[in-house]
Amino acid sequence: MSGQEPHILLSNDDGISAPGLAALHREISRLGRVTVVAPDSEKSAVGHAITLSDPLRVWDFKKNGEFFGYAVNGTPADCVKIAYWALLKEKPDLVVSGINLGSNSGINAIYSGTVSAATEGTILEVPSFAVSLATYTDPDFDYAAKLARKLAELILAKGLPRGTLLNVNVPAIPEDEMAGIKITRQGKANYLEHFDKRTDPANRVYYWLTGKKVQIEEDLDVDDYAIQKKYVSITPLHYDLTNYDYLDELKSWGLIINDR
Amino acid sequence: MSGQEPHILLSNDDGISAPGLAALHREISRLGRVTVVAPDSEKSAVGHAITLSDPLRVWDFKKNGEFFGYAVNGTPADCVKIAYWALLKEKPDLVVSGINLGSNSGINAIYSGTVSAATEGTILEVPSFAVSLATYTDPDFDYAAKLARKLAELILAKGLPRGTLLNVNVPAIPEDEMAGIKITRQGKANYLEHFDKRTDPANRVYYWLTGKKVQIEEDLDVDDYAIQKKYVSITPLHYDLTNYDYLDELKSWGLIINDR
Repeated sequence: MSGQEPHILLSNDDGISAPGLAALHREISRLGRVTVVAPDSEKSAVGHAITLSDPLRVWDFKKNGEFFGYAVNGTPADCVKIAYWALLKEKPDLVVSGINLGSNSGINAIYSGTVSAATEGTILEVPSFAVSLATYTDPDFDYAAKLARKLAELILAKGLPRGTLLNVNVPAIPEDEMAGIKITRQGKANYLEHFDKRTDPANRVYYWLTGKKVQIEEDLDVDDYAIQKKYVSITPLHYDLTNYDYLDELKSWGLIINDR
Repeated sequence: MSGQEPHILLSNDDGISAPGLAALHREISRLGRVTVVAPDSEKSAVGHAITLSDPLRVWDFKKNGEFFGYAVNGTPADCVKIAYWALLKEKPDLVVSGINLGSNSGINAIYSGTVSAATEGTILEVPSFAVSLATYTDPDFDYAAKLARKLAELILAKGLPRGTLLNVNVPAIPEDEMAGIKITRQGKANYLEHFDKRTDPANRVYYWLTGKKVQIEEDLDVDDYAIQKKYVSITPLHYDLTNYDYLDELKSWGLIINDR
């Protein structure tokens, strides 16, 4: 940055026309120059997917006749990659992904396209965070967007350690009902899932996945529970999946290559 | 299991007709009853994607006129989910994913559909591991399949801790050239990427992603390097992405809800 206006890359997984991204854009634009690179359509629960087997295409996306950003026929991670390597002239100072419709707390973090855009920014060594609003109905993105701007300002000033992103989840309640902000860990609650088995008009079977979280840990240091208790949850994530605590145990198995 | 024949679920991301899955099936079948539930087509680099916005369909897939397994129009994670919740009569004793064409070491673990099938098994509290062969050309899956069988036997006997899977990567060399087996951590080497910009016959621009890993850590405890040095690499992974080391620092930022 070095005193210049910061350059901030925005993406999401709900698609470039999503209202959550518009709200984010409105607030983040107050901090500096903003470039939007987002999927051309909704890409929820795509995990950290990237597109290798198909070409990517990029379109100018306009709003009210004005250029708003680049739409990409790919995933959120694709968007950040192609922004970084092909579309932007210089490395951005920050990546912000969101504002997602629906929370990305607990185990959802690993399915989330919103989080994956921030993860990709982090891989590319750009400070990054993801913001989600914990509702699917009647979303009011205003408070989450303001919070994102404040957090962006802080991160532009303080930075984040290499390999670490922030996963921010905001409860869908009026601002004056928020209980506060909790720094949390990723919850371990599983989903109790169900595949609804149906028959289509041609008499062929198909399945829809449904599910709900069960046994949320009742601990305000856990993202799922903090949100339930009206706190904004901020979880530092990384993408080193190694379970270091298990390395020694596994070494003790004494695995060898056949007879050697 | 309790003395009965174990029931093992196989999946992959190269698709149900992939030779790596056939090799795995051949060896794992020697241990017990095997059910294959795999994507109907190649799903590489899909990350931990699940299909929420489309229905899933399941077909019987035959080989040489005989039932081989269930083909699903979804991702590897979808396959394990639908097997567990809808297709299998009882919880399987083990999930094995692979054998993938191409290594899933280092940062590739987070993009890998092969790893995601094993992650999904782990989420469902079934001991799980992923196996990949570090080549894209002239694969010989025999050794990797034998190793998978031995590892499966061990895990059926010893179990794995809740939330932990194994990510196994096998160098593509003759068995008698293998240097041994290393228990490793996930490498941190980044990709130097490039989007190849081309023009299609209709004169529209498109991009292909290409890239290669740079600055692999020269440490035999790192998966990428161990494979390069002809070791089989086994990395214990988990899906708790929390960066615990950064929680206190983040708390010290003293974030508050606006003026409250």
